[in-house]
Amino acid sequence: MFQAAAKTFWVASTTSREILSTIRHYCKKTPTTLRVSEAVSGAGLDTNIKVQGWVRSVRPQKTHLFLHVNDGSSLQPLQIVASSELNNPSLTFGCAVEVTGTLKRSPHQKQPVELEAHQIQVVGECDPVDFPFKIKERHSLEYLRQFPHLRCRTNAFSSLLRVRSEATTAIQSYFKKNGFVQIHTPVITSNDCEGAGELFQVEPSSPESNEDENFFSVPAFLTVSGQLHLEVMSGALSKVFTFGPTFRAENSQSRRHLAEFYMVEAEVSFTESLEDLTKVVEDVFRSATEHVLAHCPEDVDLFHKHVTPGHRETVDSMMKKRFPMISYTEAIDILNRSSEKFAFPTNWGCDLQTEHEKYLVKHCGNIPVFVTDYPYDLKPFYARDNQDHPEHTAAAVDLLVPGVGELCGGSLREERLDLLRARLEEAGLEETYSWYLDLRRFGSVPHGGFGLGFERYLQCILGVENIKDVIPFPRFSHSCLL
Amino acid sequence: MFQAAAKTFWVASTTSREILSTIRHYCKKTPTTLRVSEAVSGAGLDTNIKVQGWVRSVRPQKTHLFLHVNDGSSLQPLQIVASSELNNPSLTFGCAVEVTGTLKRSPHQKQPVELEAHQIQVVGECDPVDFPFKIKERHSLEYLRQFPHLRCRTNAFSSLLRVRSEATTAIQSYFKKNGFVQIHTPVITSNDCEGAGELFQVEPSSPESNEDENFFSVPAFLTVSGQLHLEVMSGALSKVFTFGPTFRAENSQSRRHLAEFYMVEAEVSFTESLEDLTKVVEDVFRSATEHVLAHCPEDVDLFHKHVTPGHRETVDSMMKKRFPMISYTEAIDILNRSSEKFAFPTNWGCDLQTEHEKYLVKHCGNIPVFVTDYPYDLKPFYARDNQDHPEHTAAAVDLLVPGVGELCGGSLREERLDLLRARLEEAGLEETYSWYLDLRRFGSVPHGGFGLGFERYLQCILGVENIKDVIPFPRFSHSCLL
Repeated sequence: MFQAAAKTFWVASTTSREILSTIRHYCKKTPTTLRVSEAVSGAGLDTNIKVQGWVRSVRPQKTHLFLHVNDGSSLQPLQIVASSELNNPSLTFGCAVEVTGTLKRSPHQKQPVELEAHQIQVVGECDPVDFPFKIKERHSLEYLRQFPHLRCRTNAFSSLLRVRSEATTAIQSYFKKNGFVQIHTPVITSNDCEGAGELFQVEPSSPESNEDENFFSVPAFLTVSGQLHLEVMSGALSKVFTFGPTFRAENSQSRRHLAEFYMVEAEVSFTESLEDLTKVVEDVFRSATEHVLAHCPEDVDLFHKHVTPGHRETVDSMMKKRFPMISYTEAIDILNRSSEKFAFPTNWGCDLQTEHEKYLVKHCGNIPVFVTDYPYDLKPFYARDNQDHPEHTAAAVDLLVPGVGELCGGSLREERLDLLRARLEEAGLEETYSWYLDLRRFGSVPHGGFGLGFERYLQCILGVENIKDVIPFPRFSHSCLL
Repeated sequence: MFQAAAKTFWVASTTSREILSTIRHYCKKTPTTLRVSEAVSGAGLDTNIKVQGWVRSVRPQKTHLFLHVNDGSSLQPLQIVASSELNNPSLTFGCAVEVTGTLKRSPHQKQPVELEAHQIQVVGECDPVDFPFKIKERHSLEYLRQFPHLRCRTNAFSSLLRVRSEATTAIQSYFKKNGFVQIHTPVITSNDCEGAGELFQVEPSSPESNEDENFFSVPAFLTVSGQLHLEVMSGALSKVFTFGPTFRAENSQSRRHLAEFYMVEAEVSFTESLEDLTKVVEDVFRSATEHVLAHCPEDVDLFHKHVTPGHRETVDSMMKKRFPMISYTEAIDILNRSSEKFAFPTNWGCDLQTEHEKYLVKHCGNIPVFVTDYPYDLKPFYARDNQDHPEHTAAAVDLLVPGVGELCGGSLREERLDLLRARLEEAGLEETYSWYLDLRRFGSVPHGGFGLGFERYLQCILGVENIKDVIPFPRFSHSCLL
């Protein structure tokens, strides 16, 4: 009761020292609530604490009861030791509990501390028959996918979520530290970014009186990239980034594609060459990976030990070596000189297919590799013309990574008004993109940018085969659970 | 040339000390490129530097030419002083330049430093006749709205973007520091969150062969809230948050509504009362505001001086006092005792309207005020039943703030399976939300959460009248520019 009083007390506008001191006196007797991560790290040792979480294992023995309790703050659970008398039939795998007791150094090597429980209260029961996950069983990621509302309660998926959150933090910190301004580029847009893929269209579900009229007066789509909007901003803030959802209405069941996925995109003004971009891409990759390895090593280890054994070596070798850079023309040479039989052609001018990407990554030592200067005709209107001969290329770059293939694509943008206008005119898009031409009419600067697929990044560092297992709620054709 | 060589050098896998030292020797002679924010803070004083940016003012005098150059890294431009000989007709307001010279202490009090230019190169011209913004003219925010692709080039909007970016950082840091895991809740969803507003529906723009079939096999909508998805996650990770776009297909032209806007949402497990939530809301508000005031004081001042003079006092008084908390029943009493004539009824059981919210905020001293425990029948199925009599209320809370009204809404969630099931059955939603009932069947815990409108937060601290002026690309009925 006094704890509740203390909690509500802060809303009072005047305070009385006497009341406060009484409350403090009583609060001392009530246990301190700790998170499991705090308790396992030894905070509150030899004091009376309370933890709240979910039971991960129950081992009743003759005189003692052993529980593991987790609250999602870390992979490691807290071991609870109690007298057998505290056992009760509701104490099952998956139930929610509140445990108070004294935190002690553990006599066992397995865990540094354990909680000697005085009281165990089952807050929410969990019928072990109906609960789809079974104690001590290791369920496959594919099995877990059937339960998008419950899979976060498994070790593997809660680890994934912590890694995803840390990687998000790391990426945002990287850009922040390096002077980038974060822009929330819109999800709904009237651009189609020149057919970067199949689009989703958006309309109110219950149309207003006039059915012929669009809600926005124009057709509106879900964004496939924030690039053009970022280019607007880089023309004033120089260095900008966005990190948000992007969409493709592709009828793909591939393990690398989703209808809704996250992209990290950046635009940088006053670039001199593609290296100004590849340096940022490589830095983002390295600093995010270093951060994740340092901040949730146990979560990463779970994947490297139990999901894709041996993947840690791949990650370590990626982090040791600089990412090599080859031109598209060199890449075509490499493919043509190889003894491998490819299903798709490898003539100069053809797009690189997954089989080619995989071969190039292997050829370069199974580490990420930048491929630069693609054929001009393969690239969208905004890619900067290298004006080279006889092989006409654009200043575009892709980053190919082990296991995943294309992780990131970028380019210098055509900043020269006359060249850009000519290309848009050719495509009959001059009017649609007159606002984009304005960016070149008023204080245009050499600039470029890239987009990095966040889920593919997570696949790459964790070694997760299927992209559906690295996003909280995967959306793909014929599936939108919850 | 040597600078370019140095830039590309890092890609080499082996290094030669001699080459490196040669490069370093030559690099010393080339100027260091600084951002304007670095230069104005005095970095590189008395050395040869280069800055790149856009011209914000041109003042040619007899012997000297004065320019202000900005690159978006700060509101403050760098003053350039050059011999008149360096002037040329392309040096106009809005053009892009690269300036090299020596950074010197300024003899004038107005700025601490100035750049004595040796060279000024116009990188991108800007025709002052066509450019919609005129030098030395202060354009209204409404005028700027016509140019979503250019308005970031004005002081006001670039300040807004920096504030928005800093506020984003601050909010994410707050949650991170306090043990919350960031979740990317989906944009596309098959839930409709019980009619929280008009929905946008999503379908591929070029339907596949079978037009009758949905892409996702079920109708899919743009999310109106990440709450239900967050509740999934709080059932394993205890404390979670999301910060992303949410959508309403409302045909509103109000200065407080958008079709696409950002929400900060959090869910907290093991709550004991509404105060567990209001504490988080108030802490987020305070820590974000303190961060913004500390990290971009000049940008905030621009709004407090030129957009809504006097607003700083409002912000200061919000920050000084704890936010009071009144119950809905008290709020109704206050409204009924007032001498104000309201257009909408103020009977117990009626929803609070904007006019009521405004009155309550004023009544409480023009600072944010929490209103708690709304009539049960006004709240959605997930709000926790207070089981009180005779006035039947739910444990829900709104935060009302000066100038904006409702900034934030939250509630304890009904964690009791029997009560939740009964309410869903009543509404005929038991089957639709069977997955949501599962969360209560398996290890349910008392929990609650809230959603805070990010644009409204920015309006509140900056004193910006219209919500369209605090988001990069506003979307509302009949408008989806770019």
